[in-house]
Amino acid sequence: MTHWKNGTYFGTLVVFDDPMTVGKVLPVAGVEPAERAQGFYFYDKLESYTSWFGFSIVFNSTAHKGTLNLVGADLMDDKTQDLSVVGGTGDFFMARGIATLCLDASKGTVYFRLQMDIKLYECYV
Amino acid sequence: MTHWKNGTYFGTLVVFDDPMTVGKVLPVAGVEPAERAQGFYFYDKLESYTSWFGFSIVFNSTAHKGTLNLVGADLMDDKTQDLSVVGGTGDFFMARGIATLCLDASKGTVYFRLQMDIKLYECYV
Amino acid sequence: MTHWKNGTYFGTLVVFDDPMTVGKVLPVAGVEPAERAQGFYFYDKLESYTSWFGFSIVFNSTAHKGTLNLVGADLMDDKTQDLSVVGGTGDFFMARGIATLCLDASKGTVYFRLQMDIKLYECYV
Repeated sequence: MTHWKNGTYFGTLVVFDDPMTVGKVLPVAGVEPAERAQGFYFYDKLESYTSWFGFSIVFNSTAHKGTLNLVGADLMDDKTQDLSVVGGTGDFFMARGIATLCLDASKGTVYFRLQMDIKLYECYV
Repeated sequence: MTHWKNGTYFGTLVVFDDPMTVGKVLPVAGVEPAERAQGFYFYDKLESYTSWFGFSIVFNSTAHKGTLNLVGADLMDDKTQDLSVVGGTGDFFMARGIATLCLDASKGTVYFRLQMDIKLYECYV
Repeated sequence: MTHWKNGTYFGTLVVFDDPMTVGKVLPVAGVEPAERAQGFYFYDKLESYTSWFGFSIVFNSTAHKGTLNLVGADLMDDKTQDLSVVGGTGDFFMARGIATLCLDASKGTVYFRLQMDIKLYECYV
């Protein structure tokens, strides 16, 4: 759904389902990764690049099963961005915390890779 | 807004406003139910059916007034799905918890009914 | 993105990036305000005006740096509306609370101004 009338994609909604890996290991082609980030973001500022995220990190491995749910603003002009972990299920039952994003690599506007540093400050398990 | 290019509705956004009832009582035609679920979900995976929900359960009866706010991933391949209750207002002031969804009945892709089991683990009242 | 087939904009998604001020001071033209509200809402009821919000309040002044993340239902028929503050970052690290909205001024459907009263009941700092 690309309706932008300007250089900052204002109003553009992006739905994603991307693999995640622990550390800086790249996903192996053909192998379904244990963790995925599933959700959406959209660009919400005319003058520069910022976006609003709502997504879940879905864990499905022998080590971890469950989800972390995140929302927040991604102020892309800043070096790092903090989102809120607002809840969790399964192994991450009732979790709350902060996820710090950092652009790790990008190629034009088509591809980018994010580093995500998640700290949970509340956890019931 | 139906823009799918595949069998799993990837990227399709659905806005809903549906009646809810306590127990398995079906809504009575012409009678406005006391509880409603209002919000959105969209399909976010190419290979299978999964979706991301953001919605509120709105209570408006003599028994309960207020809202519960929920977000989370609905992994439809699993038998039940856990979403996070991330906040509440009114009678559900500052609530947090887990809502477990379970498909109760469906008719094609046009109609489905969900059973929702909500457990609140934090509550101020 | 205006696809409504009815008088209540059911399904219409609105992305916003609006200035905020403390108190009832109006924004000064040409001066970037210290606080902004960035996010989305959409209309989610056929019979009357209600909407679902997901947004962040972004603070960027010498007094405050950080974000508050909010979600919730805006039942426009009620005199005031309560949304949930589900998380925060920076100066508002891990905050939770309630934001009470109240229509302050409007001009047709094109312009409206909201008063927002934010109470944080959980805060780590």
